[in-house]
Amino acid sequence: MGKQLSFDERWELVKRNTSEIIGEDELRALLSGKRKPVVYLGTATTGRPHIGYLVWILKLADLLRAGFSVKVLLADLHAMLDGVSFESLEHRYNYYEAVIPAVVKALGVDPKHMEFVKGSSFELRPNYMQDLLRMSTFVSVHDATKAASEVVKLGDNPKLSGIIYPLMQALDEEYLQVDMQLGGVDQRKIFVLAREQLPKIGYHARVEMMTPLLPGLIGTKMSASDPASKIDFLDDSATVEKKISKAYCLEGEPDNGIMLFLKHILMVIKQDSKKPLVVQRPAKFGGKVSYHTYAQLEKDFIAKSLHPMDLKKVVAQEISALFDTLDVKKLTKLAQKAYG
Amino acid sequence: MGKQLSFDERWELVKRNTSEIIGEDELRALLSGKRKPVVYLGTATTGRPHIGYLVWILKLADLLRAGFSVKVLLADLHAMLDGVSFESLEHRYNYYEAVIPAVVKALGVDPKHMEFVKGSSFELRPNYMQDLLRMSTFVSVHDATKAASEVVKLGDNPKLSGIIYPLMQALDEEYLQVDMQLGGVDQRKIFVLAREQLPKIGYHARVEMMTPLLPGLIGTKMSASDPASKIDFLDDSATVEKKISKAYCLEGEPDNGIMLFLKHILMVIKQDSKKPLVVQRPAKFGGKVSYHTYAQLEKDFIAKSLHPMDLKKVVAQEISALFDTLDVKKLTKLAQKAYG
Repeated sequence: MGKQLSFDERWELVKRNTSEIIGEDELRALLSGKRKPVVYLGTATTGRPHIGYLVWILKLADLLRAGFSVKVLLADLHAMLDGVSFESLEHRYNYYEAVIPAVVKALGVDPKHMEFVKGSSFELRPNYMQDLLRMSTFVSVHDATKAASEVVKLGDNPKLSGIIYPLMQALDEEYLQVDMQLGGVDQRKIFVLAREQLPKIGYHARVEMMTPLLPGLIGTKMSASDPASKIDFLDDSATVEKKISKAYCLEGEPDNGIMLFLKHILMVIKQDSKKPLVVQRPAKFGGKVSYHTYAQLEKDFIAKSLHPMDLKKVVAQEISALFDTLDVKKLTKLAQKAYG
Repeated sequence: MGKQLSFDERWELVKRNTSEIIGEDELRALLSGKRKPVVYLGTATTGRPHIGYLVWILKLADLLRAGFSVKVLLADLHAMLDGVSFESLEHRYNYYEAVIPAVVKALGVDPKHMEFVKGSSFELRPNYMQDLLRMSTFVSVHDATKAASEVVKLGDNPKLSGIIYPLMQALDEEYLQVDMQLGGVDQRKIFVLAREQLPKIGYHARVEMMTPLLPGLIGTKMSASDPASKIDFLDDSATVEKKISKAYCLEGEPDNGIMLFLKHILMVIKQDSKKPLVVQRPAKFGGKVSYHTYAQLEKDFIAKSLHPMDLKKVVAQEISALFDTLDVKKLTKLAQKAYG
């Protein structure tokens, strides 16, 4: 954990790169009053984890440094509720269980400092089930559908499973005994439901912390359905380079996935490790240049003194370097079982 | 069990007074091929049991005599899903658990021959929960709502609990290990859902047997919300007489609750016990008359040689006599805890 941080330093670390916090006063009280507040993030073990996941992994690393106890819920049952077949469930879980801690480690955080919890290990217990049924007596079909709408693939004819999903996510806060839940801003409606419903069955509302949703590195959205639009943790450097080379990134216009990835992920990692981002260019294109902050980089990009091609090249290199310690052989085997 | 019944006698007994059977061929095969087929009826421990319940209790008695093993599910969790508060749940269950076997006994059937099962004793187990979540991935919100619509009080803004209800009722068939479910025709949509959905999670469809829904003895419907429209098992003879005296029953017109009660319940009991229904009248109104079958009685009623007043009087007497062995003091105590 290194040196002791002051309250203000911890507060700064806790809040940075968040979009919204519901219950900010409660969070402040937790941070000053509780020795080790507990946060959890749930990730349904659905599609292949991709570098968009770094947003919350970095945020959890912040919270860890700020003195939180961190739990990562590998939500296998939620994956089933969101359409993963019962037969694939265990394989999907096995992949997540292997790749997420490996990525955490690649970012310089010892995964032993995070507790990884399998959803089905506690969500099938009688007390949980009873609470789920109790909560379902308070939540209308309408409100459950609304809560699920930005997270679950509901389609034209929503399945009952999709609208049970938000209630279980709310209950997880209680059964994981956490003080705060972390998630993307897409989780907002589920977070609000959790705040409203837990007290109705005798539990207290938790703090809800949201990170921004990044568009894909490549397209305009980190599309869950198009693998080519996402960088997979197991992509080799040639694949990463190829995908990024196709990314939308107009000279001088910073509103794109590459720049947002730099802002929210890559430059955060760089700054935290006190290393600059070094762009290597032939002398005729400006030569080597180093950036210590995103602001510097953005300024140059807007001024067109940093060209998208050079930027893409360094981003691709940095991503490949970040994950070159992953046991790709082992993970690929697991991924094949999980995704066929 | 008395003398051994032939297949045809058992088949007759099984089928009488039913409205519909889904899977009649399967039922025939069960009856000839299985030593002791198993049937269950679920009753959610919601409102006060009333004499309308006799329809299914008599039907279960038939099935018992025909060689079935009989389970009665006292569905406490279903009651919660249908709006009974968590706080009242145990009290409601306690009342049902006491009054239903007492009524069974009053009808001349040893309740030891029926197995009474509490819903929450098995519906909260991990396997059940997992199957419920699995099934919810196959059932649309729309279809679950449709299935629940005639059984659960959904209202204008249905709660999620109300549409989970049918799925649990379907699963109960598997977890109670039954061959057939019995219920009123109002259960039809849930029964159809059970037939459709159980095979999707690897279980076989069960036979579904339906009894007619009787209108209330008194009004046109056995209204669940108006206690004055129903005869409670604990009503004293004066109350029974008073309620029945107000019943709709036009001279010569057999289409009313009193006549239907006679047809489906009272004359069934009489015939089975080989005793006639004896109407005592002053000589000037026709004197004493005995009926061995409903057909005889209906004929006289239509011919206006049996007056509604005399009929009501005997029906009230018979009902009171039927339940005069109940331990009203003990049951009233339990009812007060359950219904305040």
